[in-house]
Amino acid sequence: MDRSTAPGVGGLAKNRVEALSDGVFAIAMTLMIFNIKVPDIPNELVRSQIAHEVFVLWPKLLVYFISFVMLGVYWIGHHNQYHYILWTDRAFLWINIFFLACVSLLPFSAGLLGQYPAERTAQVVYGLNMILIGGFLYAHWLYATRGRRLVIGDIRPEVVRLASRRILMAPVAAFFAVCIASISTRLSLALFVAIPFLYIVPGRIDHHWLRLPGRDSG
Amino acid sequence: MDRSTAPGVGGLAKNRVEALSDGVFAIAMTLMIFNIKVPDIPNELVRSQIAHEVFVLWPKLLVYFISFVMLGVYWIGHHNQYHYILWTDRAFLWINIFFLACVSLLPFSAGLLGQYPAERTAQVVYGLNMILIGGFLYAHWLYATRGRRLVIGDIRPEVVRLASRRILMAPVAAFFAVCIASISTRLSLALFVAIPFLYIVPGRIDHHWLRLPGRDSG
Amino acid sequence: MDRSTAPGVGGLAKNRVEALSDGVFAIAMTLMIFNIKVPDIPNELVRSQIAHEVFVLWPKLLVYFISFVMLGVYWIGHHNQYHYILWTDRAFLWINIFFLACVSLLPFSAGLLGQYPAERTAQVVYGLNMILIGGFLYAHWLYATRGRRLVIGDIRPEVVRLASRRILMAPVAAFFAVCIASISTRLSLALFVAIPFLYIVPGRIDHHWLRLPGRDSG
Amino acid sequence: MDRSTAPGVGGLAKNRVEALSDGVFAIAMTLMIFNIKVPDIPNELVRSQIAHEVFVLWPKLLVYFISFVMLGVYWIGHHNQYHYILWTDRAFLWINIFFLACVSLLPFSAGLLGQYPAERTAQVVYGLNMILIGGFLYAHWLYATRGRRLVIGDIRPEVVRLASRRILMAPVAAFFAVCIASISTRLSLALFVAIPFLYIVPGRIDHHWLRLPGRDSG
Repeated sequence: MDRSTAPGVGGLAKNRVEALSDGVFAIAMTLMIFNIKVPDIPNELVRSQIAHEVFVLWPKLLVYFISFVMLGVYWIGHHNQYHYILWTDRAFLWINIFFLACVSLLPFSAGLLGQYPAERTAQVVYGLNMILIGGFLYAHWLYATRGRRLVIGDIRPEVVRLASRRILMAPVAAFFAVCIASISTRLSLALFVAIPFLYIVPGRIDHHWLRLPGRDSG
Repeated sequence: MDRSTAPGVGGLAKNRVEALSDGVFAIAMTLMIFNIKVPDIPNELVRSQIAHEVFVLWPKLLVYFISFVMLGVYWIGHHNQYHYILWTDRAFLWINIFFLACVSLLPFSAGLLGQYPAERTAQVVYGLNMILIGGFLYAHWLYATRGRRLVIGDIRPEVVRLASRRILMAPVAAFFAVCIASISTRLSLALFVAIPFLYIVPGRIDHHWLRLPGRDSG
Repeated sequence: MDRSTAPGVGGLAKNRVEALSDGVFAIAMTLMIFNIKVPDIPNELVRSQIAHEVFVLWPKLLVYFISFVMLGVYWIGHHNQYHYILWTDRAFLWINIFFLACVSLLPFSAGLLGQYPAERTAQVVYGLNMILIGGFLYAHWLYATRGRRLVIGDIRPEVVRLASRRILMAPVAAFFAVCIASISTRLSLALFVAIPFLYIVPGRIDHHWLRLPGRDSG
Repeated sequence: MDRSTAPGVGGLAKNRVEALSDGVFAIAMTLMIFNIKVPDIPNELVRSQIAHEVFVLWPKLLVYFISFVMLGVYWIGHHNQYHYILWTDRAFLWINIFFLACVSLLPFSAGLLGQYPAERTAQVVYGLNMILIGGFLYAHWLYATRGRRLVIGDIRPEVVRLASRRILMAPVAAFFAVCIASISTRLSLALFVAIPFLYIVPGRIDHHWLRLPGRDSG
């Protein structure tokens, strides 16, 4: 796609892509609660069993929270890219659709990990899903910024590099967790729980972020 | 975060945060209907049993309605804050994500309470969920207004105080309901049903609300 | 609420109310598909049974379609009101939340009717749900237009009256269907199927609608 | 409907139709993940069975991906139409509601095909659903452009024709897949998997698309 043939803007309006993405993220985040089923207890055992039956849901609850937060992290990352992205093209839309298909897969992977937290297979599936989401988000950024294809002209190379690095933290950590899963499932699980914390700490990208004049807020 | 480094606006545009929040609220509210399952009745018993099977769903229906309304209350509270909030920062986004994770947890807690309305465990879980939602909403407001970090400069201290008080009504009432649950589950349940009514009565904050010129409406 | 104290606009911005409503409608409409479960057939019977098992889903499919279309009708009705409504107040928001709680209840009622289409109880529940949705939508319009509380000043009384009449068609027809259910469930069901067709025919309100200059479209 | 009676704009604002459509699309896409259930394995068999139980989910995963991508394709097609569409009328809204009802049906059809990928019935249902979605999208375009009823006045006939052709690719291919299903279910399935690839290749419409100045993006 040649920028000069689409002066200003072209392709599908970026705000519609954002609307669909916001929708898929909000739904995927909210649907994960369905992995935590209300326990079905026979009438005569309810009183004695209910506290225990609710308590044993804690691994599912933990996986729910880290997955919800990770989707939040990816959502923030996705949106930050749109501060710089000005227009879209067909290939970019396809990357975005694949990205969203992986986001929307997480309720399954999180359900699997929540039900079988100590199983290597569940950890590998969950890790691969994380890697896919992060990988497509990285491809999304790379495609948009390569040769300043779809972004504002005066984007600083440092911003491109710092954003890339920040995006890659989660899939790289998930890759390690997948590798470790064959050695110690406990360590692997601990790593998955730790990933969101990597993003709580502000990074060097934040300095650029803070100084960026808002584009779409009043 | 220093306001002077981000004159005007900064961070993630507030309208995107609102879009994600609206999505999560709308979905969490609508998903709660899944806690009311269509009863599965053997063919030969349908005619004689269906009215009774539908009738016994009333506690689930009641919990559905109070939870739907409470999410509506929290949604209104969340939005009213955005009348005054002008920009966001990373910590604020995290508070918002934790808030939404608790909102999205309510379909589970409501499902538990709907199925076991007379059980203390279900009431405590539901109450804790309410307290968490209200608590994060309060933290959200506190963080934004402390030192006028993220809000308009001329916000009146009285508005800040009245809004805080109004937000705290629900979690405080839920806290009492949780305490009462160990004494009388019936009284606790009655209190949960009563909480929404606290918000139907207009409060003193409304006088400020009414006089506030609309910011984002045509 | 005194209009003079809120010159121009006041209360929660109407566009946020629309966003939540659009979300709840879109989700309720889409969730109804879950009432049509993929049949679970033992392996050795799949080949011989699958066509029959899919065919017998037709009552559920029919109820899905009429319910989807009815929600579409109510959504159009809700939005048409917002052509004239300029601001909101607390009571109006509450009417809206009750309205949405009933909209979001329809996946249950439709599931019940789809599973037990010939049962009076299912028809009554479905009909009551329709009446509630239509009733709250009517209350919504009445509250907004009474004394021109929340609407544009130059709204013509004829528009108010024609819109009211059009809104009431569905709940009135549903009321008849509920009454008829005790005499003939077949007739009652036929009436439910017929309701959407009442709205396909353009009404006298359309003449006003067509001449209305669009407020929020580019 | 006479255009002259509605100069400029009329009917329901097109941006509200887009909002509902975006919502239904995002939800239908995301809900399809529920067709892939977390396998329920007895405790003593988990370790030995989980890898196998997850592996056998691959047909469901494949159907999930092609369906997600196809909904993405239809969503892009739907939105591209709105670049040219300026206003709506009642008949157009109805076409749109029927279109969305078929979009929202896909989670069922995809669930059926995912569970019984080799069954002719499942392939026919899935194919019919695809044809219905594509057919309504085509009717949507035809209705809007016929006599330039709802579109911008200077739309070039070539754009109308190329867009029509591009929309029809999927339902025509699905029609062939349905016909082939009675001869070879394997070939039919392969064709369903191939359909999305038809859309990855840029078409001649893209040249017009690229040159179209963006209407609703900043």
